[in-house]
Amino acid sequence: MGILTRWGRANTVAPPGTGRPWREASFSKQLNPQYTPGSDDYVQAESAVASATVSRNSALSTWPQAEALPPEAVAFSPSPRSIVLVGMPGCGKSSIGKRLAARLDLPFLDADTEIEAAAGLPITEIFSRYGEPHFRDGERRVIARLLAGPPLVLATGGGAFTDARTRAAVRESGALAVWLRCTLPVLLRRVAGRDHRPMFLNRDPREVLERLMVARHPTFAEAQVIVDCTDEPPETTTKRVMDALAVHRDPARLKVRLSERSYDIVVGDGLLERAGALMAPVLPARRAVVVTDSSVAPLHLPALRAGLEQAGITLVATVEVPPGEASKSFAQLEKVVEAALAAGADRRTAVVALGGGVVGDLAGFAAAVALRGLPFIQVPTTLLAQVDSSVGGKTGINLGLGKNLVGAFHQPLLVLADTTVLATLPPRELRAGYAEVAKHGLLQGALWDWCEAEGARAVAGDPAALAHAVLESCRLKSGVVAADEREESAEGGRALLNLGHTFGHAFEAECGYGGTLLHGEAVAVGLGLAASLSARLGFCSQELPGRVIAHLQACGLPARIGDLPRSFSAERLMTRMRKDKKVRDGAMRFVLLRGPGDAFTTSEVPPAAVMSLLRDEGAAA
Amino acid sequence: MGILTRWGRANTVAPPGTGRPWREASFSKQLNPQYTPGSDDYVQAESAVASATVSRNSALSTWPQAEALPPEAVAFSPSPRSIVLVGMPGCGKSSIGKRLAARLDLPFLDADTEIEAAAGLPITEIFSRYGEPHFRDGERRVIARLLAGPPLVLATGGGAFTDARTRAAVRESGALAVWLRCTLPVLLRRVAGRDHRPMFLNRDPREVLERLMVARHPTFAEAQVIVDCTDEPPETTTKRVMDALAVHRDPARLKVRLSERSYDIVVGDGLLERAGALMAPVLPARRAVVVTDSSVAPLHLPALRAGLEQAGITLVATVEVPPGEASKSFAQLEKVVEAALAAGADRRTAVVALGGGVVGDLAGFAAAVALRGLPFIQVPTTLLAQVDSSVGGKTGINLGLGKNLVGAFHQPLLVLADTTVLATLPPRELRAGYAEVAKHGLLQGALWDWCEAEGARAVAGDPAALAHAVLESCRLKSGVVAADEREESAEGGRALLNLGHTFGHAFEAECGYGGTLLHGEAVAVGLGLAASLSARLGFCSQELPGRVIAHLQACGLPARIGDLPRSFSAERLMTRMRKDKKVRDGAMRFVLLRGPGDAFTTSEVPPAAVMSLLRDEGAAA
Repeated sequence: MGILTRWGRANTVAPPGTGRPWREASFSKQLNPQYTPGSDDYVQAESAVASATVSRNSALSTWPQAEALPPEAVAFSPSPRSIVLVGMPGCGKSSIGKRLAARLDLPFLDADTEIEAAAGLPITEIFSRYGEPHFRDGERRVIARLLAGPPLVLATGGGAFTDARTRAAVRESGALAVWLRCTLPVLLRRVAGRDHRPMFLNRDPREVLERLMVARHPTFAEAQVIVDCTDEPPETTTKRVMDALAVHRDPARLKVRLSERSYDIVVGDGLLERAGALMAPVLPARRAVVVTDSSVAPLHLPALRAGLEQAGITLVATVEVPPGEASKSFAQLEKVVEAALAAGADRRTAVVALGGGVVGDLAGFAAAVALRGLPFIQVPTTLLAQVDSSVGGKTGINLGLGKNLVGAFHQPLLVLADTTVLATLPPRELRAGYAEVAKHGLLQGALWDWCEAEGARAVAGDPAALAHAVLESCRLKSGVVAADEREESAEGGRALLNLGHTFGHAFEAECGYGGTLLHGEAVAVGLGLAASLSARLGFCSQELPGRVIAHLQACGLPARIGDLPRSFSAERLMTRMRKDKKVRDGAMRFVLLRGPGDAFTTSEVPPAAVMSLLRDEGAAA
Repeated sequence: MGILTRWGRANTVAPPGTGRPWREASFSKQLNPQYTPGSDDYVQAESAVASATVSRNSALSTWPQAEALPPEAVAFSPSPRSIVLVGMPGCGKSSIGKRLAARLDLPFLDADTEIEAAAGLPITEIFSRYGEPHFRDGERRVIARLLAGPPLVLATGGGAFTDARTRAAVRESGALAVWLRCTLPVLLRRVAGRDHRPMFLNRDPREVLERLMVARHPTFAEAQVIVDCTDEPPETTTKRVMDALAVHRDPARLKVRLSERSYDIVVGDGLLERAGALMAPVLPARRAVVVTDSSVAPLHLPALRAGLEQAGITLVATVEVPPGEASKSFAQLEKVVEAALAAGADRRTAVVALGGGVVGDLAGFAAAVALRGLPFIQVPTTLLAQVDSSVGGKTGINLGLGKNLVGAFHQPLLVLADTTVLATLPPRELRAGYAEVAKHGLLQGALWDWCEAEGARAVAGDPAALAHAVLESCRLKSGVVAADEREESAEGGRALLNLGHTFGHAFEAECGYGGTLLHGEAVAVGLGLAASLSARLGFCSQELPGRVIAHLQACGLPARIGDLPRSFSAERLMTRMRKDKKVRDGAMRFVLLRGPGDAFTTSEVPPAAVMSLLRDEGAAA
């Protein structure tokens, strides 16, 4: 009973300072006959009732962890958290809720009862006198206020969670929503003989429930935890809810702060299955076009499709492009846009990119230009895309003249980085993606220490290490992007993300984009050279290049020119670097290091120094 | 001597309140031996000197008008205006300036003398002690302050106007810059024997002057008035400057207010020849790619090219596309972007659209996506483009599925609407463009009255009427766009600009886009129908449809279905309208009128009412 043992910690005394008092000390629960909808009295009456009902030792409970915690970790356990039960009429929100509350030693409240108490009217009366919109408004305010107090278990009315603003209020409160999901036969058996509920009066319960399920299940799906309920005894269901709570972990969320274009990056495992629920709060409408490639589609499209369907998101179209850099073309762009619009995508239909950097760049650009801008969501499936290309809003395609020469800044509404999918990546691709993690490490500092200590675990496919690498890379990159969205800073800013790339692009261009040298591999060699150049010019310690090269090589990446499977002419590399997009007024721009966590941009590197470095590192004269 | 008579008005007494006092009452002019560069004393010293020098009755002068004014117009004459003379050493800024000042009864000042007085040092000393950047900074402050006072004639040092911030200060002061342009032989003759000027010391004057001319002429070209000076006597040159001043008219300027994307629409005649000078202040670099079509290029490209060259703007590439709607394609987009980048366009190179709506939409979209966004300038050459498509930032191309389905909002840095070029338009195109003017009239109100009274003159090609139509249309449209840049208002907003377009697009789509029915012609019929529908639904007077139809027909435009050269099926038109991009949740959206100046959007028009209107107006059942 490891799980219950962890929950049992609810009975221990909380650390000093975590028990928050109620706003008011004590009230007797009574109906308020002076209730006037919309008046200030409403709110005050609610406060009084709610305060009275839950003034117990609920603040002493703590939140369970999926893994057993060492004793010293108790002080760091998260705050206790309310649980909101949602589901169809008859799913057992009250009966399970009361048992759950008892096990968790939390108070239990029924939202409908609280609303009636606050209003001084039965819910049927509020509906008939003031209409549903008014009721939902009051319901939301009661629920929000209850959740603002100490933790509790709250059963909600069957329609509460169908209201988008109520769902938002529950989300923002930090509570955990649990959907008690029942099949129609189970529900029908439970409501049989209970047709005193007004919704069943003189109606066929099957028809009523079917209609409600179609309408409500997509919104219930936004609950963080879903428990399937059968005809088993309530105690058994309660036990299964406890189990689900014990293993539940919220995915990590990072906010990319770009004023009205701010968005979240969600990092975690199993996100594809939850994709619809995670996307729904930010979508203007539950309609999407998925763009993917024919390598990724068989691996991950079924899970994404199921995730979207669960939240009632209509898949207007699925567009598959061939895998590889060649798909970043005008021809594929036109194909994607045509397919989306021909299928009926409108201005409120989101484009969802499921794939690596190529798919993200292409789909993002299609979203930027179709109907002058559609909502866009990134679901990156490679390490490179998760740690780099999906974050920052750069989208685009290639020309014969060069890569990424046509495109747009088009920020996504959301990035879902499902670290589970990284398990399907070929090891070489995983290693190549790790080069960008190492780059972020060198830019960030502390992350470099982590790389040296733990990075090899990530490259070996360790899920926890990969999750850390993704999360910290996104944290670094989103911070840089937020400060310089359109790469307009004269010095530093977004250009710092090009550490290793002035060299890297030159190797990549020399090799073509057919897979001889992956982008990440070119960046790895570029990082080694950037560190070496920094040391030669006296900006960083003489030890740093050795450390950088040793770490990358330990991760199975090339880090010196000699590690690459072909030879290069220093002259040709120099020519490539002089043509780099970042060249300004003819001067090559480099990102150099004073040390991990201390990078800077400069145009003042003597070409002779670069040339001799390339030669010393093994390029042919 | 009509011109001098008008200038002579400078001797009359100004209206009360127009004479601005000097900041300080009176100072004796003296060198300030305590001058310390950059200290507060510098500014105070300048103020003192300047105040002393020009405290005369200059504020009484008024500004000349090109046309003789009726007596009652005197009160409305613009404020008097300073004149800033710019040009090469030896061009005669002082000798002409003094004569000009005498004729205009304005004080004359030499900026270099004022700077020396303020600094207490000869200019050569300021240069050698503190360097040129410091000198230019002080020079700009002296000039800006002198121009902030009452009108005067100001001769500037040869290098003053080469400083971008000084040019901006002169522009923003409202002064009129006059370039006294001399050829090299003229200048050489004038500086012969005057090589006491330090710049010629021990140097070949020809070489010095040639080098300076190459560097400075492009910036002198930004002066609003250019007068070519020869070896004639100074009095003759002065007379020619007076003539040039008398005929000079600033083009009209409207600001489109979109916070950091705000830009000006410049409306006037002869703007192509001045294009470089007008663009230079807003360009990040003096480099441009011109996109045009093969009909427009032979007519207007030479003038634009000369205009750009005069201001030293390098024409990196000229891309010509075939005329007509078919050029709004992915194929032409790719061609334009490839051509621009292959020619070396970088992030600071502007794309200039020279042509009608097709060229503007295509070039604007190319600018939006090349290197993720290049600076963009519109030089519309059709009435339709000048009054409508060049303003508002909508750019894009067509798909087989429909028009404008792919694109971007990409605001220009500037719109140059040269009304001279409208004279080259075929009459049918001019008429079609006028339909959008009439639409703006109906949206705006007072402009509709003008249309009914004067619109026919515009359609007949009267330059003044066309200029008014363009200016007022841009004023209306830019105001609407500023309030709703991305057409996101739920009601009204940018959607109002679709008055007549729900119907119009249906006729256009039925006819194809090959020229059978021009967009403006379709809009004209749409305006007639929108007015008729408004009257039938009781929103506007029963007279309005008749007025709208009569006016459009008087201008040679179709305004009823029966005016069109083919028949239409009401059923098919309805089907087209139901597919309109603006349809929301299945309901057709119309812009209707309560009267001129009072339009609104609605989705609540009964389809039966539209159907019966189409039938009654002559569509086949």
